Amino acid sequence: MSTLDAVLSRIDQDIDQSLERLFALLRIASVSTDAAYKEHCRAAAEYVANDLKSIGFAAELRATEGHPVVVGKSNGAAGPRVLFYGHYDVQPVDPLDLWKSPPFEPRIETLDGGRKIIVARGACDDKGQAMTFIEACRAYKAVTGKLPLAITTMIEGEEECGSQHLFKFVRDNADEFRLDMALVCDTAMWNRDTPAVTTSLRGLVYEEVTVTCADRDLHSGLFGGAAQNPLRVLSKVLGALWDDDGRVTIPGFYDGVKELPADIKADLEGLNLTAEDFLGQIGLKIPSGEKGRLILEQTTTRPTAEINGIVGGYTGEGAKTVIPGQATAKVSFRLVGEQDPEKIRDGFRAFVRARLPADCKAEFANFGLAPALQLSFDNPALTKARRVLAEEWGHKAVAVGAGGSIPIVADFKHVLGMDSLLVGFALDDDRVHSPNEKFDLKCFHKGIRSWARILDALSTP
Amino acid sequence: MSTLDAVLSRIDQDIDQSLERLFALLRIASVSTDAAYKEHCRAAAEYVANDLKSIGFAAELRATEGHPVVVGKSNGAAGPRVLFYGHYDVQPVDPLDLWKSPPFEPRIETLDGGRKIIVARGACDDKGQAMTFIEACRAYKAVTGKLPLAITTMIEGEEECGSQHLFKFVRDNADEFRLDMALVCDTAMWNRDTPAVTTSLRGLVYEEVTVTCADRDLHSGLFGGAAQNPLRVLSKVLGALWDDDGRVTIPGFYDGVKELPADIKADLEGLNLTAEDFLGQIGLKIPSGEKGRLILEQTTTRPTAEINGIVGGYTGEGAKTVIPGQATAKVSFRLVGEQDPEKIRDGFRAFVRARLPADCKAEFANFGLAPALQLSFDNPALTKARRVLAEEWGHKAVAVGAGGSIPIVADFKHVLGMDSLLVGFALDDDRVHSPNEKFDLKCFHKGIRSWARILDALSTP
Repeated sequence: MSTLDAVLSRIDQDIDQSLERLFALLRIASVSTDAAYKEHCRAAAEYVANDLKSIGFAAELRATEGHPVVVGKSNGAAGPRVLFYGHYDVQPVDPLDLWKSPPFEPRIETLDGGRKIIVARGACDDKGQAMTFIEACRAYKAVTGKLPLAITTMIEGEEECGSQHLFKFVRDNADEFRLDMALVCDTAMWNRDTPAVTTSLRGLVYEEVTVTCADRDLHSGLFGGAAQNPLRVLSKVLGALWDDDGRVTIPGFYDGVKELPADIKADLEGLNLTAEDFLGQIGLKIPSGEKGRLILEQTTTRPTAEINGIVGGYTGEGAKTVIPGQATAKVSFRLVGEQDPEKIRDGFRAFVRARLPADCKAEFANFGLAPALQLSFDNPALTKARRVLAEEWGHKAVAVGAGGSIPIVADFKHVLGMDSLLVGFALDDDRVHSPNEKFDLKCFHKGIRSWARILDALSTP
Repeated sequence: MSTLDAVLSRIDQDIDQSLERLFALLRIASVSTDAAYKEHCRAAAEYVANDLKSIGFAAELRATEGHPVVVGKSNGAAGPRVLFYGHYDVQPVDPLDLWKSPPFEPRIETLDGGRKIIVARGACDDKGQAMTFIEACRAYKAVTGKLPLAITTMIEGEEECGSQHLFKFVRDNADEFRLDMALVCDTAMWNRDTPAVTTSLRGLVYEEVTVTCADRDLHSGLFGGAAQNPLRVLSKVLGALWDDDGRVTIPGFYDGVKELPADIKADLEGLNLTAEDFLGQIGLKIPSGEKGRLILEQTTTRPTAEINGIVGGYTGEGAKTVIPGQATAKVSFRLVGEQDPEKIRDGFRAFVRARLPADCKAEFANFGLAPALQLSFDNPALTKARRVLAEEWGHKAVAVGAGGSIPIVADFKHVLGMDSLLVGFALDDDRVHSPNEKFDLKCFHKGIRSWARILDALSTP
């Protein structure tokens, strides 16, 4: 029997104890946004630190201006030095009355058809997910007497409130955490049978533009027809942001946007996600993005422009014949690949100014300027992970982009110069951030096995 | 000495008494919108009725569901039977602390250079203006012992709150008021030296459109790039309402819009109103309307489209990466000539629907549907009035359009089938509706003389 087979076997034998350890962590109400739960957060951190110590990590709570970070370190055999990131804090539980059972009293529920789920706040996000990694380490330790790699853990307590103190912590301790790669367990599978590796997170440029025409609000009876109207200016400008094919028309907007490698794109095509399936859940059916692109490209690997808000003039009930002096729009861009946030911001501002009547003015404010995170598709760790995930799940692991972000992962790349391998076992129906959060028992169990396989693969040249 | 010369002479001799009578009316706080002033409104109506009786009118207060209408009737010599319209109610006086003297204590103030002004609420709008007509009648009566024409007066008390009850009153008594023409004294001169006859009032179509895309607000990280955005739809649609020459692009929009007669247009050109002069007062300088049109055409005799309000998405401080499910715009059109309000409304709705993605919907509400009022330029009364106004003021009287409206005048045309002759003596700096409303003494005095000349001209075949 190979070491890996022995480790997998150990995981299967130990699954009930693994669950008990997870339940113990789930019973701690570590809500990070609410100061009333500060001691609970510390208790969760201590639980995780002790758990790491029990399997051979040198673990401690490291102070920040907020909740502590659990840093654990192990020596390991040959192979890359990895930083594992997860978080022990959870979302608030409101509205409490929608929970079918108390959120911090974890339980197993068996659904029709025999599917078993773990129900509790944090069951998935991120206690359940983080524990898949720790339990894989535990099995390794039990079977081989040591951990498979040199691993540093960074289990933080503020992900659900923006990771603000972690940014400083990472910068202040950059040398300590600049390892060979990061492993992150906070993302989703493609579906219940199909594992996924997240290879990109989109960036964001968020602009507010205020257009001023006349120096006051005007009566349209007196000035209508001669005085310029900032809502007309905004409509003209913003309506021109997309061409008829759904492409953003700002010059240079697509600079740094690369096509997906053929094999990755073929994988996405193979998922057969239709516009009807994806948009049907929100009452739509016609994609608004670039023509000829897959829905998955439109939402994850292609850049976008969105109008997030417009306000100007009279917006109450009924009629008022006003020509407003001023109107404001919020416009944001999701970035991919190597798009330069500052260049996109400047390009947008130039686009607006180029269309502005000479006697009107536009003022801008920026509320977001983050690059995309694109992990390289030819990273050997990614190839290994996809291979062994397929072995575990029986389906090819897809490399997908995420439309949103995990803030600290961009810093791993840009501050520490480290790629991340984002593997997670959440499902779309896990009700993350909502009442009755759950994690499929199968996802927990096979998640542990998946990490064991990944650790094995990474430790093998 | 001709009868007219005798009447004009009488007006000059009597001007101090004319002023006293106006002051007595100005002392009555006939604010129509505020129920607390109901008795003041009645007192003003009674004052006017008694004044009309004193010069030979059979005058009475006619009840409506609101403030009464003062109807006076006189027999007259040959000539057209005319309906004179004015109003005895005034705007509220707020903010009171900005008045330099109490608004209902009229006074004469002498400005630098010797210009004398009457200061009080209603000095111009419309007590001062209405009294120019009544004082002209008084002089006629004094000189000739009778009134020059068969005149019916309709001095209402609700113009400043929308004339709602007057509409019904006119419809209910259509036979009584269907005379040969209406005379209206509630408009402005071109400038202090140049008299004007208002020959058109623009109509209005006011629409609200709500565009719904997704059935809820969405997170732009998850759905951005695929889900349609109602603010994008609205920007595309509304931004397309004008072409690069400032013309409205709704098919058929200009049906029923006629070019001005060459002589009328030449008069407007002769006024040399520049874009800088007109727009400079509000901080602008580039006309937004149809290229190649005079500013005066853009604001009075050409139709317009305006966005009066837009709201959708996140409009608070900072950033929220939302794709709203719904967004709303208010859009209005100023109409001229024979433009059909219902056709314009339907054309706008079709314009929106034609540009709507097939999975989105648009809902409409109408808050205004009034045709323009275009008085015929070849009306002999207009020609006579312009001739005698030029004699009085020493400058050619211009025929101008007004961008806004006097609601009842449209009904005179459409319900009673009567053209109106709109002659007024207000100036742009009269602060109508604002604190320290004034009326130039010269405008009051020469206004009386102007009406005497018009009555003389109308009574002459």
